[in-house]
Amino acid sequence: MDQTKFPSEGPIGIGLLGCGTVGSGVVKLLLSHAEDYAHRIGRPLALRKVAVRDAARGREGLDLAHHLTTDHHAVTRDPATQIVVELMGGVDPAKRLILDAIAHGKHIVTANKEVIARHGDEIYAAAREAGVAVFIEGTVGGGIPIIMPLKASLAANRIRQIAGIINGTTNYILTMMSQHGQGLDEALLEAQRLGYAEADPTADVEAYDAAFKIAILASTFFSHRVRIEDVYREGITHLTAADIQYARELGYVIKLLGVARREEGHLQVRVHPTMVPRTHPLAHINGVMNAIAVQGDAVGEVMFSGPGAGMMPTASAVLGDVLNIAANLEAPNPLITCSHEGAGDVAPIDELETQFYIRLIAHDKPGVIGTIGQSCGQFGISILSMVQKGEQHGLAEIVLVTHRVKEKHMRAALADMADHPTIQSIASVIRVEGLK
Amino acid sequence: MDQTKFPSEGPIGIGLLGCGTVGSGVVKLLLSHAEDYAHRIGRPLALRKVAVRDAARGREGLDLAHHLTTDHHAVTRDPATQIVVELMGGVDPAKRLILDAIAHGKHIVTANKEVIARHGDEIYAAAREAGVAVFIEGTVGGGIPIIMPLKASLAANRIRQIAGIINGTTNYILTMMSQHGQGLDEALLEAQRLGYAEADPTADVEAYDAAFKIAILASTFFSHRVRIEDVYREGITHLTAADIQYARELGYVIKLLGVARREEGHLQVRVHPTMVPRTHPLAHINGVMNAIAVQGDAVGEVMFSGPGAGMMPTASAVLGDVLNIAANLEAPNPLITCSHEGAGDVAPIDELETQFYIRLIAHDKPGVIGTIGQSCGQFGISILSMVQKGEQHGLAEIVLVTHRVKEKHMRAALADMADHPTIQSIASVIRVEGLK
Repeated sequence: MDQTKFPSEGPIGIGLLGCGTVGSGVVKLLLSHAEDYAHRIGRPLALRKVAVRDAARGREGLDLAHHLTTDHHAVTRDPATQIVVELMGGVDPAKRLILDAIAHGKHIVTANKEVIARHGDEIYAAAREAGVAVFIEGTVGGGIPIIMPLKASLAANRIRQIAGIINGTTNYILTMMSQHGQGLDEALLEAQRLGYAEADPTADVEAYDAAFKIAILASTFFSHRVRIEDVYREGITHLTAADIQYARELGYVIKLLGVARREEGHLQVRVHPTMVPRTHPLAHINGVMNAIAVQGDAVGEVMFSGPGAGMMPTASAVLGDVLNIAANLEAPNPLITCSHEGAGDVAPIDELETQFYIRLIAHDKPGVIGTIGQSCGQFGISILSMVQKGEQHGLAEIVLVTHRVKEKHMRAALADMADHPTIQSIASVIRVEGLK
Repeated sequence: MDQTKFPSEGPIGIGLLGCGTVGSGVVKLLLSHAEDYAHRIGRPLALRKVAVRDAARGREGLDLAHHLTTDHHAVTRDPATQIVVELMGGVDPAKRLILDAIAHGKHIVTANKEVIARHGDEIYAAAREAGVAVFIEGTVGGGIPIIMPLKASLAANRIRQIAGIINGTTNYILTMMSQHGQGLDEALLEAQRLGYAEADPTADVEAYDAAFKIAILASTFFSHRVRIEDVYREGITHLTAADIQYARELGYVIKLLGVARREEGHLQVRVHPTMVPRTHPLAHINGVMNAIAVQGDAVGEVMFSGPGAGMMPTASAVLGDVLNIAANLEAPNPLITCSHEGAGDVAPIDELETQFYIRLIAHDKPGVIGTIGQSCGQFGISILSMVQKGEQHGLAEIVLVTHRVKEKHMRAALADMADHPTIQSIASVIRVEGLK
């Protein structure tokens, strides 16, 4: 696109779509750090229009009277705005407005994970066509720099694996369960009381949020778009205090991990509760903190950690993107801009090869262990360790950890066990990752 | 500088000064990933001349016959080279050659911490004059992205504090002492056996290496050059197994930390053994790993961790810089290029306010505790906890932790105690940081 219609000197116009919590943080930084930013970039940033649903509502004591509008096009089509920051969330009208802004030659900064995970292909295609940038640091990991460091600093690497704790709410819940022996319901209530979880916690505890984020990371670093439908997703609601306790005894910590891995000819992209060895740095990321461990072929493994959400951390990510676009308005760094070459070939979860932790409730009768051994043996599954735990009302709890096995074979073996009269139920199935 | 003498299409020429371990890694990546890199940047990178002392020596099986030269100017003055990578280490001739390359319009990438810590001001001034970039990701933290993430991703923040484990050798030694009860000498020998420590370990154990690195981080992020002479430096050689053990009992881990902090009107820049609370993520960085925790006013605290040294990790950082310069040859990002505005005002260590851990050997007589209390009281030092430990041959070990106090007052109180006949010796003085 012809960028020459924008002056190459004077203020760079910034418009906002949405001004909730993160938006207010962005405006605060823009106003309070204006001098710093102008100095770093060589030109001032000028806040232009801020489109909101209700222009009368107060915003964190910010005086936005001259900026607020309910007309979104006053942002997306403002001739003096070069960078449009979208913070509305959700798909509609965010997607439509992003595309409208792109069509009017605006660069885009967004923290909207859903619109990027679902419609990133269309948005990036439009941006490429228009010659504008779409920056998305705020979509994953809150304030933690991850998108740009991987694209720019680790540009010399082929990225092999990204594994991260990318949802603070569930990490808080799992930390409380693990460190304070709380049950899931109790920990969730506490998270809601502290404002870490929504009244309807589904998006977090069922891992929809984390699925969007791992889809974005995979799409961004494996240069193939990963469709959100191809991401295997499993939440934390089935985890029990017993599993947390057994994990500890076995030397693991249970974390909700997003994992994207590039293997021969296909990708793995998934989010599910995972037993992480206590020796891995991810095991020590607690509370609402997020962390993302990245494996590159040259660098080995590096990890980025910090606050995964919140007004000012996310505003830091969003404005970091704004500043980087502003600093390179005329010649964006091709390493940082996004390119996807068609949809990636994501392997079905059936094909995943991993270790499994299984907890069974069995009738305490001779032959139970034999039954389990037989079911596993039939599908070529080799057992690393098996412990029979206590006995109550004639029922015993049996915990086993397998060697690496294909998910489909594990499922077949479990179905076989479940059919057997000595097995009362399969209480838990949790994947175990060495993360090597 | 007029960059138009370089073609804006076709290969980008890369020259190397030095081809030891890291240099061989850089060449390996350049050759094996050539196609990837050309794709990402839109132009191929072409390896040009590689200047070495001994062109006959083999280099990790690389066929460099057509590239090797003993003439450094064949690199710094080669008309087809746009980016010169300096990996010689030390000040001379590295500084002279970097300046020569700059004078010939080359961009510079270096992993040489000493030349940047000592002569960064002169090198950056020359580069600014010539309109070329000097990128230094490889000087600190090996493969861990730190320079660019702070400059670009965290550009919206005012950086308040950088605290890091930035020397892998000493972290390995301290980890062995802490986790396996080894003494310093034993741990050092083991580190040497594994190739983590040099035959002469002075640069690491006396913290010269870490001092260079924290000076570079402070200079880079506080926009004032920090002179290496202004960095307070204290190594790990005086640490004992007893201190490590007491630290654990008190809930701390001893780490060699580089700390740079911006306070009202001045900077603090220092490296010394530090008791870090076990709840802080830095406490869990073990072995040769490095980690850098950064506090920004918007983001709060984020941490970057990974391999702090090694052939391929450092090559990853160096080539990351090369790729970023190559990607923006015509219009470098002003956020990423370096600017220092005069030397920073670094406060002397006397003015540092911190907590202290003190271990004293005293004659086990009544009145000892009173003496300590009096010495502290005289200088307004308030004691957080004091424990008398065991007794042998009429001597008792007394461990105390103070509230926050100015270093000069602590020193005065210690001098006062040391004069008292009931105090046999002051065995250890270690600063304690809450890192808040």
